[in-house]
Amino acid sequence: MRAVDIIAKKRDGLALTQAEIDFFVQGYARDEIPDYQASAWAMAVFLRGMNEIETTALTLAMAHSGTILDLSSVAPLVLDKHSSGGVGDKTTLVVAPLVASLGLPVGKMSGRGLGFSGGTLDKLESIPGFRANLSTAEFVTQLKNHGIVVSGQTHDLAPADGKLYSLRDVTGTVACLPLIASSIMSKKIAAGAQVIVLDVKVGRGAFMKTESEAVALAELMVKIGHGVGRRVAAVISDMNQPLGNAVGNSLEVIEAIETLKGRGPKDFIEHCLAVASQLLLQAGTTKTENDARAKSSSALDDGCALTKFGEWIAGQGGNRRVVDDYTILPRAKIVEEISAPRDGFIAGINAEEVGLTIVDLGGGRAKKEDAIDPAVGAVFKRKIGDQVKRGEAIFSLHANDRAKFESAKMRLLAAFEIGDTRINPPPLIHRIIK
Amino acid sequence: MRAVDIIAKKRDGLALTQAEIDFFVQGYARDEIPDYQASAWAMAVFLRGMNEIETTALTLAMAHSGTILDLSSVAPLVLDKHSSGGVGDKTTLVVAPLVASLGLPVGKMSGRGLGFSGGTLDKLESIPGFRANLSTAEFVTQLKNHGIVVSGQTHDLAPADGKLYSLRDVTGTVACLPLIASSIMSKKIAAGAQVIVLDVKVGRGAFMKTESEAVALAELMVKIGHGVGRRVAAVISDMNQPLGNAVGNSLEVIEAIETLKGRGPKDFIEHCLAVASQLLLQAGTTKTENDARAKSSSALDDGCALTKFGEWIAGQGGNRRVVDDYTILPRAKIVEEISAPRDGFIAGINAEEVGLTIVDLGGGRAKKEDAIDPAVGAVFKRKIGDQVKRGEAIFSLHANDRAKFESAKMRLLAAFEIGDTRINPPPLIHRIIK
Repeated sequence: MRAVDIIAKKRDGLALTQAEIDFFVQGYARDEIPDYQASAWAMAVFLRGMNEIETTALTLAMAHSGTILDLSSVAPLVLDKHSSGGVGDKTTLVVAPLVASLGLPVGKMSGRGLGFSGGTLDKLESIPGFRANLSTAEFVTQLKNHGIVVSGQTHDLAPADGKLYSLRDVTGTVACLPLIASSIMSKKIAAGAQVIVLDVKVGRGAFMKTESEAVALAELMVKIGHGVGRRVAAVISDMNQPLGNAVGNSLEVIEAIETLKGRGPKDFIEHCLAVASQLLLQAGTTKTENDARAKSSSALDDGCALTKFGEWIAGQGGNRRVVDDYTILPRAKIVEEISAPRDGFIAGINAEEVGLTIVDLGGGRAKKEDAIDPAVGAVFKRKIGDQVKRGEAIFSLHANDRAKFESAKMRLLAAFEIGDTRINPPPLIHRIIK
Repeated sequence: MRAVDIIAKKRDGLALTQAEIDFFVQGYARDEIPDYQASAWAMAVFLRGMNEIETTALTLAMAHSGTILDLSSVAPLVLDKHSSGGVGDKTTLVVAPLVASLGLPVGKMSGRGLGFSGGTLDKLESIPGFRANLSTAEFVTQLKNHGIVVSGQTHDLAPADGKLYSLRDVTGTVACLPLIASSIMSKKIAAGAQVIVLDVKVGRGAFMKTESEAVALAELMVKIGHGVGRRVAAVISDMNQPLGNAVGNSLEVIEAIETLKGRGPKDFIEHCLAVASQLLLQAGTTKTENDARAKSSSALDDGCALTKFGEWIAGQGGNRRVVDDYTILPRAKIVEEISAPRDGFIAGINAEEVGLTIVDLGGGRAKKEDAIDPAVGAVFKRKIGDQVKRGEAIFSLHANDRAKFESAKMRLLAAFEIGDTRINPPPLIHRIIK
């Protein structure tokens, strides 16, 4: 088998066999196939596509390019939840302890924020002492002892994916459904979870801008998961405006804890219950959506989820006192409320622009190497559909630099669209795909 | 400007601007753009195509990636003739001295054989002493003193093309019209000729297998040439059977000299006159095809072309005695005539198979690094349309190794197709494109 023939076959629009895909991916992972062949192949895949069988083979080949975590000795069924990335998305901080408190172990390898999209690990690391980079042994121990672990991806997990992902980034081959789907699913499969719920965001503040794109990606990932024997469902959820009210690392931790205390923003609670319910249903512990929802809801109401959150944070070295004392979190020097420039109804809050503004404030990363300021961010007091009067606060802005504060203030004000007539807020959950 | 954006633009099927193409090509030539971006770009070009304006810009960018030879101080009008590669194609050895003997300077940078296709330089190097690798200064001096020079491409000629060509070879992006056309034309333009006649081969023993492919390539190259102010014509000529009778380096030199003496094979003389006529017409020294043909023909008949051949060879260090004494050329140890296995009419001689057989005999290269045995080859005594009787010689085979001889004999016999009814030989010249 020769790499050039596999490239030419895909170039001509033919389906590759599992053996060909495996040869190519393993060869690339072992540096036997050079970057310049992999990038020509990726462009051919971009323009010619891949069918589901090929995409599944690609997913498995990338998963098997490194260690496959076997968690069966820890628990028969480990749950994972993955978000395609959004603005204000602190769902894992609520859903993971929620389902873990119901006796379902959650073992998740997570990513860091890049571009307008925040990262769960960055949020968790604003809690003093929290260790987001566990070794595989530590990951397993935490899962065994506490039934919940969220940690950074280990280096030996799907290394072919990591290599290919970096290459795609600089060769114009990112926005390709089979490559995106296989990239996500290869890591999920390598990380060992048996139950996976995918939270696929759609809208202005998501990578997928249209519902049809999001649905196509979700359906493909669900099929891949089923093809390799995992229980998978996908929630297509809205990301036209930020999720919840808080955007920024410390601020989102606070909002997550408030939610665990039953005091979260309505849209965010709703979203968490939808995702948690799918996890329960896929795990098989409840049979109906209503039951799943009721169970999830009571875990928030009775404080079990909050207790599990404290246990989890402490287990990974974090200061569990954060649950009762938010002042131990990094706080911004400048905190000001910004008011509406006119009367009207909120018609839009450009989530991508919000995300990028927080990055510029220091709360996210433009490049992988960038450091993060956990204290900065914004808390929205009005969302789409809300009425507002001129002079009323519509958001508070948290910054550590006056110039950056002023610039962010202007950008966030511009991200608001205020109209004369009341419009309905967008649906939170667009669709569930199983 | 960023390379990744240029790749993405082509990926999306948009036309690149001259500035974008220039940025990409010069960046690649200077190693600022890595191979993996160039190969993704080449695949996007392969699958999305390029219009004529883009292809012309690409040609110029590659030409300008190195030295552009300015021959205007040597002669106002320098001629070049390029073949797309075939089997038994020793046309340059006849046409170059022919038109040079008519006072039209020929300055040609040529290639070496690769795969089934022979190379002019390899043929010339079978003449003892002949130097095929001249410096630029030697190239110019030979052209000034003798009005004829054929030499290997210098390293500083269109280096971006050389780099891209090697990359295309291993990334499945060879068979792409705009990339092939710009590769050929960039070298021609950099080599300084004002008049270019392209001999585009079509058929079994050519890279272009169908007439429509050959015509498309020829038309594109002619348009590129016109676009940059060169006088260009293309001859679409047949390569379904070997051109002339001899295939193999020494043997082809002998056949070329015989042709210059007026004793060449009819098809080869015809071909040479067609190509020479187009050079004369493009140079503007004759107005009609008939005049051009008559002038070319008399240069062969009156010995002028032969005299110029001797002068040329001697000027580049070769032993001009070769004109009268073929024994100074390398000769094979084994020379045998092979006879027809049955009565009938020759219906086909698979030129590609002939070319590959000669490569295996040692007369060509499978890889760039391979050494060449100039003595080996075959001389055909029957061509398509000829009648043959069982036991009559149909070709002679020249080899230096008995095992290779036997294997070549079987392959060449199998390359012959002998039928029961007389068929017409294929047309020599399919079309002229100006």
